[in-house]
Amino acid sequence: MPDRALDLDDELRSRTALLGSASDAATRVFTTILTRSPISRIDVAKLTGLSQAAVTKAVAPLVAVGLLNDSLGPTLTGLPGRPVSPVALVPDAVVTLGVKVNDDELIGVATDLTTRVIASERLPLASRAPAEVIDAIAELCARLAERLGDLGPRLAAVGVAVSGDVDSETGVVRDSAIMGWRNVELGPVLAERLGRRVVVENDVRALTIGEHWFGVGLGTRSFAIVTIGRGIGSGLHLNGEVVEGAYGVAGEIGHLPLTSPDKVCACGRRGCVEAVASTSAIAAAVSAAHGRPVTIGEAVELRRAGDAAAVEVFDEAGRVIGAAIASLVNLVGPELVVIGGEGVADFDLIEEPLRRSYAEHVFASADRCRIAVRPHTFEDWARGAAATAVRSLVV
Amino acid sequence: MPDRALDLDDELRSRTALLGSASDAATRVFTTILTRSPISRIDVAKLTGLSQAAVTKAVAPLVAVGLLNDSLGPTLTGLPGRPVSPVALVPDAVVTLGVKVNDDELIGVATDLTTRVIASERLPLASRAPAEVIDAIAELCARLAERLGDLGPRLAAVGVAVSGDVDSETGVVRDSAIMGWRNVELGPVLAERLGRRVVVENDVRALTIGEHWFGVGLGTRSFAIVTIGRGIGSGLHLNGEVVEGAYGVAGEIGHLPLTSPDKVCACGRRGCVEAVASTSAIAAAVSAAHGRPVTIGEAVELRRAGDAAAVEVFDEAGRVIGAAIASLVNLVGPELVVIGGEGVADFDLIEEPLRRSYAEHVFASADRCRIAVRPHTFEDWARGAAATAVRSLVV
Repeated sequence: MPDRALDLDDELRSRTALLGSASDAATRVFTTILTRSPISRIDVAKLTGLSQAAVTKAVAPLVAVGLLNDSLGPTLTGLPGRPVSPVALVPDAVVTLGVKVNDDELIGVATDLTTRVIASERLPLASRAPAEVIDAIAELCARLAERLGDLGPRLAAVGVAVSGDVDSETGVVRDSAIMGWRNVELGPVLAERLGRRVVVENDVRALTIGEHWFGVGLGTRSFAIVTIGRGIGSGLHLNGEVVEGAYGVAGEIGHLPLTSPDKVCACGRRGCVEAVASTSAIAAAVSAAHGRPVTIGEAVELRRAGDAAAVEVFDEAGRVIGAAIASLVNLVGPELVVIGGEGVADFDLIEEPLRRSYAEHVFASADRCRIAVRPHTFEDWARGAAATAVRSLVV
Repeated sequence: MPDRALDLDDELRSRTALLGSASDAATRVFTTILTRSPISRIDVAKLTGLSQAAVTKAVAPLVAVGLLNDSLGPTLTGLPGRPVSPVALVPDAVVTLGVKVNDDELIGVATDLTTRVIASERLPLASRAPAEVIDAIAELCARLAERLGDLGPRLAAVGVAVSGDVDSETGVVRDSAIMGWRNVELGPVLAERLGRRVVVENDVRALTIGEHWFGVGLGTRSFAIVTIGRGIGSGLHLNGEVVEGAYGVAGEIGHLPLTSPDKVCACGRRGCVEAVASTSAIAAAVSAAHGRPVTIGEAVELRRAGDAAAVEVFDEAGRVIGAAIASLVNLVGPELVVIGGEGVADFDLIEEPLRRSYAEHVFASADRCRIAVRPHTFEDWARGAAATAVRSLVV
């Protein structure tokens, strides 16, 4: 893709132009159908609060450019009256790529408009230097584009998810501790290289956007994702949108000062949640107790074997994460909290102290918030990145 | 008012009916003019993203019922081209009442649509029993209605602000520690008594709504209000709306577990911010240090006189509030935090440790969030309640 940029064909151009210039009402109609296809015009009207005439008016041009299909034929609704013709999304009318950047590896997916995975690729990173990572992302995108076959000309946008402080409006990664990056102009450079629209987003927020549109968040009015593992992060979805933070920072649940000030975090601050609950903090604490280097894998084994020091370290991690989730719930009162991230593979080791501490600190009827645990694979994170690309086309 | 319910005259009915049935676009047009009157149709179009034709279409019926005035005559804009005729709100086309419920007193205001105060009244409370407080609110509203004079028939809605867990959809106060209330059906009972629409809202959220529409929040994309004093609370305004909490609880910054578990909060939980930073916690800690009962007023005097124990207690309160504000900022990344509440009268006593602790814990570029201090009078809180009444008419 980098060296032989495909001309966007007229078909794709007409689709993205229509979506990009859509009125508010048309955008709401399309996103409603995007997430609930197939669906009747009547139900779209109900969900959007628009008149049926307004829905019909919005649907017509979307059908004309091939984004929607209204020739599925009538279906019976089970209700009295005439049968209705549902409107359906044409999922592969536009395709996108999503890339999750880890410190040692890129995970990429090509997806349709519903973030269904069409192709998936991984690429190890030899270096975290921005220029080399950008080369690798371009290489990964080229491989994914190859695998799109006939759908290649429909590739409209690329989403990239990176841990840290990301300015999604400019595509600049301002600060990523895991990558060791400061003010890396990832979006603009990649857009130039790929000849496509590129969206860069904080990785947890990308996952949150994906879950809102196509996952556990669909149909909830507000939810949060809390990810545990190497870092402890969160994404918030409130009042109809992901919380971006006025200055690019939001959801930094791993840096709430909920533990003792004598615990120093990798970020340099004192008392952060991550200072006792990140995988590296857990490994370091078990190492200190045993007076020798212990990996996180070995720390998990020690905990499973009932080693007293490891039990204490994992209990403390669970307690502090539980207090952090209670803090989040007390502040923003979501309907649902989803706990995810690679750390949930060993969630059973911290679940009991986590839930006890959460119950001790959650306030009044906020305790009705549901807590769900969901393991996210790295491919799920890449799908989140693709969801940000889809979102960039329609809102 | 309770015993001689005025017939809503046709004029008022036509105005509230139009606002209540307005399309999304018309609502956005009206709220834009409400908060920025007088304003040209061109600027309304720019701010709402609507076409000028859509703005003109929305404005016409609002002028017809007397909510807007478009006969101010042309004004020069300083730009080339023809002069424009601005559209202006008719502020007293509709009036509302706002009542702030304290444990010992009611503060009420009658306001126009911009929450400009037309009349103000206070009423001491002899009891916190729900039935007696409801009687007192009805009495206060009757006095305010008397003072409306010719505007009386334009009274459309009453907003009531109460501390605690309030379900604003049903008007039920589920849990108010300060009032000692559980599941009090304040809204439905008052609506019946007053013959008017009644909105009940958590007091800090009401203040936040007022500040969003007519105060410091106007023009910011996201902000938070943190109130200090008898309680420590917060209101969040994110993605265009106040954060209500899925189950009525949000903004409970006073119950983040940021201090030692040996500090027991009035709510019964351990380690809450309020357990060391509420005025009663400060008074209790100074009392304990001196071995005799000390009021908050005397504690302030001791601190001003340099009493070592009082210095330590106020420093700790400042540190914990600073950590709490950093937690809020790290989680939701607002553009602006306004510190208010009756406790800001003595803000100088905690400011230095508060700002130091905030700076220690705020994460990355979230530190660009502005922190402003603004004393709110109880009348400001009542205006917040009135703002919720105005809001109920238009969204």
